[in-house]
Amino acid sequence: MTAVNEPLQVTSDVREAVHEAARRARVASRVLALLTTAEKDRALGAAADALLAATDTVLAANARDIDVARAGGTEESLLDRLRLTADRVEGIASGLRQVAGLADPVGGVVRGSTLPNGLEIRQVRVPLGVVGMVYEARPNVTVDAFGLALKSGNAALLRGSSSAAHSNAALVEVLRGALTSQGLPADAVQLLPSEDRSSVTHLIQARGLVDVVIPRGGAGLINAVVRDATVPTIETGVGNCHVYVHAAADLAMAEKIVINAKTRRPSVCNTAETILVDRAIADVAVPALTQALQAHSVVIHGDLPGQVPATEADWSEEYLTLDVALKVVDGLDEAVEHIDRYGTGHTEAIVTGDLAAAREFTARVDAAAVMVNASTAFTDGEQFGFGAEIGISTQKLHARGPMGLGELTSTKWTVWGDGHVRPV
Amino acid sequence: MTAVNEPLQVTSDVREAVHEAARRARVASRVLALLTTAEKDRALGAAADALLAATDTVLAANARDIDVARAGGTEESLLDRLRLTADRVEGIASGLRQVAGLADPVGGVVRGSTLPNGLEIRQVRVPLGVVGMVYEARPNVTVDAFGLALKSGNAALLRGSSSAAHSNAALVEVLRGALTSQGLPADAVQLLPSEDRSSVTHLIQARGLVDVVIPRGGAGLINAVVRDATVPTIETGVGNCHVYVHAAADLAMAEKIVINAKTRRPSVCNTAETILVDRAIADVAVPALTQALQAHSVVIHGDLPGQVPATEADWSEEYLTLDVALKVVDGLDEAVEHIDRYGTGHTEAIVTGDLAAAREFTARVDAAAVMVNASTAFTDGEQFGFGAEIGISTQKLHARGPMGLGELTSTKWTVWGDGHVRPV
Repeated sequence: MTAVNEPLQVTSDVREAVHEAARRARVASRVLALLTTAEKDRALGAAADALLAATDTVLAANARDIDVARAGGTEESLLDRLRLTADRVEGIASGLRQVAGLADPVGGVVRGSTLPNGLEIRQVRVPLGVVGMVYEARPNVTVDAFGLALKSGNAALLRGSSSAAHSNAALVEVLRGALTSQGLPADAVQLLPSEDRSSVTHLIQARGLVDVVIPRGGAGLINAVVRDATVPTIETGVGNCHVYVHAAADLAMAEKIVINAKTRRPSVCNTAETILVDRAIADVAVPALTQALQAHSVVIHGDLPGQVPATEADWSEEYLTLDVALKVVDGLDEAVEHIDRYGTGHTEAIVTGDLAAAREFTARVDAAAVMVNASTAFTDGEQFGFGAEIGISTQKLHARGPMGLGELTSTKWTVWGDGHVRPV
Repeated sequence: MTAVNEPLQVTSDVREAVHEAARRARVASRVLALLTTAEKDRALGAAADALLAATDTVLAANARDIDVARAGGTEESLLDRLRLTADRVEGIASGLRQVAGLADPVGGVVRGSTLPNGLEIRQVRVPLGVVGMVYEARPNVTVDAFGLALKSGNAALLRGSSSAAHSNAALVEVLRGALTSQGLPADAVQLLPSEDRSSVTHLIQARGLVDVVIPRGGAGLINAVVRDATVPTIETGVGNCHVYVHAAADLAMAEKIVINAKTRRPSVCNTAETILVDRAIADVAVPALTQALQAHSVVIHGDLPGQVPATEADWSEEYLTLDVALKVVDGLDEAVEHIDRYGTGHTEAIVTGDLAAAREFTARVDAAAVMVNASTAFTDGEQFGFGAEIGISTQKLHARGPMGLGELTSTKWTVWGDGHVRPV
């Protein structure tokens, strides 16, 4: 993952390029906002067809990225994130067809009424307009973001990783060609320059030209974007998630959930990073969990003998590896306080057979998702039945938790009258 | 109105005071989030009673603010915004009782389902947490903001105008006393220092301590807050609103709507600032509208003989006075383009008898509210039936248009299972 921890830079020709792209995106967005569902679905299908037809070109571009990355000493796990294959291109294309099959959120009436004076008011879903995405190595995000943006009527300004520059350029060229073939504006999707970081800065400061920016990536990238943005942003994906094994937990269930939450895919944001265990059951639960975790090659950090001694950082940071912190707590109050202090508001889980404890935990814990007797791994747009996901919001404004197509919309009030004026 | 156009300043002791208040607010917010509706309503009633009982103290504090303002040469219209009377205090108290009568948004289930695997997921309304408000002279906002924040389970950090410092301090003391009398945390409402502007900066940069900041006031204040904030903000209230008199308008209706939209209360954000008139009817419509506007002492800025010559600023700025810009346009396309270029996304109106034109205007115009044959003055939380209003959002994230209690909430997903783990 390309963490962006340094201050973002500013370069004026890049600024003009980003602003010009944003202005063109705005023009395109006015057309997109008025498309029918059928028109958008046809374009998504055409884009899927075009991608398949261009598989060779896309793979050739991807091979260039892989060569550059390998020459730069990138490790194999990151190369795999970057790599496209014919199968993966097919998967990406079929993702576009899946998005075409989802319900169109635009035009949905959220609420409405006829006021006592006869005015008819309705709150209607409309696209956000111009959506910026800043993301890291995986080139599939380029196509996914385009698909979700198009279906929700938005123009997409994509700022991918420089390591995927050739792949992204090839993919976006295919998508733009498909749009043109359908009589739609190619500027519905544009790739911003990724050679230097200043394009991120210009994107997130293009207030008035860009409606929202969604960063997807590591904590460094997200913090930099949120700190420097003047455009509204949606903070995504940093998850310091906890599993709290309550005194009344079924230990076999706790073990199963802890192992799944930690080891299913350690590098994703919904993975568990700290296990909290009630003191009342610690004598039995800690050895059992330790044995199970170690059997899955998980390194345990904590204050107990035999554990890697924990520092403050162990409680507050995401490992995103096969490491976990483990802490013994004096009951639900301490568990909630620990989560309040160190959690990132992503996903928190309790394992318990006690209904009152489950209700208190879900009520008190302040996070996008609170699980009772379920793995943290379920916080995911597809698992939630959204069909697709643009990211997982960990902020409280606009969207919280997995974001689907609906979260890529705003609303507009329409008010119909017949000469209504407001009394003084 | 105290416009804040200069860069915001930073002072470190004020910073510590703001952060300490925010930390106390966070602690209080954890209690508020779990209150029942009855407990909140009781507290609102107690606060209303306490305000009435403290009328003399409040009026004495207000008299000090008035004296300082008058000595400083503040004009009479602004003094009137600042002034409290026994009647006004009674109105403020009855506003709190009205809020007690509104439905509690917290705990409402937005959506939910049982997933194919048996997990029960629900998206539930929860308070935002700690809400910062930055606002200008009117001291009633202090109590209104407290009431809406409390009812929606939020702690309020209030940064009012220094010109209302004595009034605000007296009001907040009364509110805190009422909370204590009900066994609730006084820190649910706190007044931040207003002697220098740095308290605004510290509030909007207290990321992690404050969940959202809502500025209410003139364009200068709102722009400064939005520019410098790292805490998520909701942009409110700047309204460069248009009334478009379409070729198929009923002219008598157009006149009535234009006069209401411009003259009902020229200083508020939903007032009309520019009138667009179709060229096809300009020969008749412009003289008629001119006569009607002039009869209401409105000065017309534009390009026609007899008008004050319009500059670029006339199209882009809010007058908030008895001035209006008037432009003749070549039909709906030019009207929409003009609004796209100069509008602030608040409220836009069309007057027409032509259904296709009305539908096209509402579909194409990108604003919080679009009116057909109705005055722009209707964009208002009370008019929309929300019972109360915290402001009018002109941004697209989270809330757009009048914000009621629901807009002061976020959501949380709860996921209930019985040992569910996610397949690899």
